[in-house]
Amino acid sequence: MTVDGTLHWDAARLAAWSEPKLSRVEAALSEWVGVDAPVQLGDAMRYAVLDGGKRLRPMLVFAASEAVGGQAEAALRAACSVELIHAYSLVHDDLPCMDNDVLRRGKPTVHVKFGEAGALLAGDALQALAFELLTPDGEAISPAVQANLCRLLARAAGSQGMAGGQAIDLASVGLALDEAQLREMHRLKTGALLQGSVEMGAACGEALAPGALGALREYGAAMGLAFQVVDDILDVIADSETLGKTAGKDAASDKPTYVSLLGLDGARAQARELLAQALAALDRSTLADTGALRALAHMVVDRDR
Amino acid sequence: MTVDGTLHWDAARLAAWSEPKLSRVEAALSEWVGVDAPVQLGDAMRYAVLDGGKRLRPMLVFAASEAVGGQAEAALRAACSVELIHAYSLVHDDLPCMDNDVLRRGKPTVHVKFGEAGALLAGDALQALAFELLTPDGEAISPAVQANLCRLLARAAGSQGMAGGQAIDLASVGLALDEAQLREMHRLKTGALLQGSVEMGAACGEALAPGALGALREYGAAMGLAFQVVDDILDVIADSETLGKTAGKDAASDKPTYVSLLGLDGARAQARELLAQALAALDRSTLADTGALRALAHMVVDRDR
Repeated sequence: MTVDGTLHWDAARLAAWSEPKLSRVEAALSEWVGVDAPVQLGDAMRYAVLDGGKRLRPMLVFAASEAVGGQAEAALRAACSVELIHAYSLVHDDLPCMDNDVLRRGKPTVHVKFGEAGALLAGDALQALAFELLTPDGEAISPAVQANLCRLLARAAGSQGMAGGQAIDLASVGLALDEAQLREMHRLKTGALLQGSVEMGAACGEALAPGALGALREYGAAMGLAFQVVDDILDVIADSETLGKTAGKDAASDKPTYVSLLGLDGARAQARELLAQALAALDRSTLADTGALRALAHMVVDRDR
Repeated sequence: MTVDGTLHWDAARLAAWSEPKLSRVEAALSEWVGVDAPVQLGDAMRYAVLDGGKRLRPMLVFAASEAVGGQAEAALRAACSVELIHAYSLVHDDLPCMDNDVLRRGKPTVHVKFGEAGALLAGDALQALAFELLTPDGEAISPAVQANLCRLLARAAGSQGMAGGQAIDLASVGLALDEAQLREMHRLKTGALLQGSVEMGAACGEALAPGALGALREYGAAMGLAFQVVDDILDVIADSETLGKTAGKDAASDKPTYVSLLGLDGARAQARELLAQALAALDRSTLADTGALRALAHMVVDRDR
């Protein structure tokens, strides 16, 4: 039994649901990313995107699309496009002028392998490609869905979304943020694209009742914050090998985190509370097919990397 | 009389045509760029975009839209969006890991003023904003036009457009490119967004006859190359003050240019030839209202900065 009183999927059921979707995403990314790009640019783009990451954002797109009966081709393209935005943000985040990180998912970061200029351009090209994937020629995806998906992605990625959150993060090093300020930073930096993934999945379906859309947004917002709270916890308790990136770097760089603000137990309680909020929002949505969304929420809070 | 045998607009007529449009672009950019962005990010975005540049790309959008009877609101948004892509590319191009330039339009470059990380994020956010501008809520621009504009912009900006050209440029320093290779680099680096501007202007109208669209594309391609040839000429013959950026830097950085390849007279002849091609394409288009497109083509080739 879960916090909301319903049985939720076990790990095997989530795996059976997600594995074929993950395979489609990997195959599509491999087909679409960096192909026909000149010189090393394509290699750098593919290095940044392929064979890495949990693909949480694509899974959220598929789960939300499933909840609303969304169109498969639109969901696949939306799933890949949010992953491209995520990947570009990591490439730029790792640059020496930002976090100066040399390890990502256990591999050298893109600028270590392709140079700073190469990483800069690969990130830029990945962002453009995200919008290109959403606007294919032909009739497979209606213009209205294409335009909706572009609108949601642009807002999630831009100055009032992910990029804005990164700017707050940059400006906050060494500052004593309070919980409201920390929450606002993460709502933008990580939350906007996670919430955007849910909204884009919902946009793959027919027009939703406003109540259902609002509930999915609430689910996405709670999930986005929960993800970051757990990230902060893992940064403290996990080692670099499990994490696939440098552990303990928040404390080392004097960045405010949920753990530094609430303590480890407080942060854990916060994560459970956000999970409960996300599940409660799904209950209110009156959407029938929310099993995958529920399972992903549990996975985010219970993950160990 | 011009090369194509028609009278073309004099400077006063072009100014009378362009000035109200430039005012609308400046007002719209000021209203849309960096507003409500957190901390310094909005300031850096506005610094990168406002009060600077010739706004050639927006003018091309308006001129092409006029030629096809395009919709005004779509043209304004398309005009601003191509300028945002252009502005972001300059911000990233000027970074120390790329051209390491400290002067742009006579002012300190964005990273000099806002730091490298600030410039990186401002560029990233400007790219996202370009797509956000193209996808407003409401009914003012049809979903089909929104999706078309996003498609054209993404292709022009991405790995098979501007970013791809920058990657070739980066890889070509110190290499002896032949004319075909140099042309390919510029076709992508500068040409793709100029051509994209023309295509986006055309996409603000009703569906065009394929012949007219093909002719506008040809015009855009020739204009894009002509722009770069003239840029190379100006880099040699103009001083930094007139240019508003560091002159002579191509030779200093050992970059191949049309002047190093064809000589100054050869490059000038090339520019005239491309102008003739652009005008001939308009003749073939059978579009009635190509006065502004013709005048802009002349302006690009005859400019002194």
